[in-house]
Amino acid sequence: MADEVSLAVSTVIFALRPHPRTRRPVLWIPLVRRIRAPHQGTWALPGGPLAPDEGLAASAARNLRETTKLAPSYLEQLYAFGSLDRAPTAAERTVSVVYWALVRADEAEAGVETLNVRWVVADELPELAFDHALIVEYALWRLRNKVEYSRIAAAFLGETFTLAELRAVHEAVLQRTLDPANFRRQMEASGRLVPTGEFRTGGRHRPAQLYRHDESIELADNGPLTGL
Amino acid sequence: MADEVSLAVSTVIFALRPHPRTRRPVLWIPLVRRIRAPHQGTWALPGGPLAPDEGLAASAARNLRETTKLAPSYLEQLYAFGSLDRAPTAAERTVSVVYWALVRADEAEAGVETLNVRWVVADELPELAFDHALIVEYALWRLRNKVEYSRIAAAFLGETFTLAELRAVHEAVLQRTLDPANFRRQMEASGRLVPTGEFRTGGRHRPAQLYRHDESIELADNGPLTGL
Repeated sequence: MADEVSLAVSTVIFALRPHPRTRRPVLWIPLVRRIRAPHQGTWALPGGPLAPDEGLAASAARNLRETTKLAPSYLEQLYAFGSLDRAPTAAERTVSVVYWALVRADEAEAGVETLNVRWVVADELPELAFDHALIVEYALWRLRNKVEYSRIAAAFLGETFTLAELRAVHEAVLQRTLDPANFRRQMEASGRLVPTGEFRTGGRHRPAQLYRHDESIELADNGPLTGL
Repeated sequence: MADEVSLAVSTVIFALRPHPRTRRPVLWIPLVRRIRAPHQGTWALPGGPLAPDEGLAASAARNLRETTKLAPSYLEQLYAFGSLDRAPTAAERTVSVVYWALVRADEAEAGVETLNVRWVVADELPELAFDHALIVEYALWRLRNKVEYSRIAAAFLGETFTLAELRAVHEAVLQRTLDPANFRRQMEASGRLVPTGEFRTGGRHRPAQLYRHDESIELADNGPLTGL
């Protein structure tokens, strides 16, 4: 039995990129190949031990930067995972404080892949180390819940966007087609969108109004922990 | 600077009991007097180091049992608190995985108080050790959000209850008076209540229908983590 419980921070990082076959935007996450036991050679979420002089969210943001060379556009604590059977032996018992993060599509395309870092479609994962498959499943569930009642889709987009671009984010996250007219009505009723007065032109479509999100509304409501 | 970060589990335990002056039901929490440094003599949330062979939720339930002699009717992970400045010195740095719990009013009245355990009104706290005041504030915020969209109020009540009893729980948690007719309509529309066909009689009121909650609906929806 372990004398001490180790503490680690891991991060589930989501980006929207085209699916390799369908070319429709889907959620991707970066994985890191484990270079030591346990589960050496297996894919896992980016993460590592919490440094004694580092905050939890700062540790998650550092994981993200080191793995993807990106800064998160959204970062939130997901859950602390600490079951006794997470590691193959009791001596290796670790509690992982897990964060989830969103990065913008334009930046994610610039995200690096190396021998030990690979981006994969979130719903088509290889076998993962430890309980990381359950962690990704829970992070997907949290994201899919939040996108319906907060302006979290904004974190996938640039500063301004068309309603079609915003709908594509919702469709990719929720994995279903949304009716354009209904979506427009819902977004207008939400009071979360501000028309910029500018239009996206070009291509074979007629000019589309550009919107931005009302920045006075928080990405997600964390009550007394906002800004912590 | 600390070489290692310590890991602790703490629990915010809520019960409904009459306010000492107004006699209206309000939220109470038990506090424990710290018997060692740092913050010796100050009131704090029940908790302690995570034992190497104990799960996180099991540790929280044990804290609760040892402090109150009660079993929780609801227990959920709240958040992992790990700021660098939580403890007075860096050598004492601790990450606390905090749970929140609900106990039934009838059981909470039997809860013990000793020299080092005291129940206090959740909105009238004494000075607390570490960041425990922020933790209680966040737990109250989470409870007040959840009571509006889940059947979590059930955890404060016995197996069957009248609509007036259920409304009293909502009023105590939300700290505002609710219109009885509106509340009845909302609860009936929620589909979460099942009439038992039995009635509470006695006292100066006419007999009141007893309800129970639909047990096929989870107390709170934790998606893939349900039952973990």
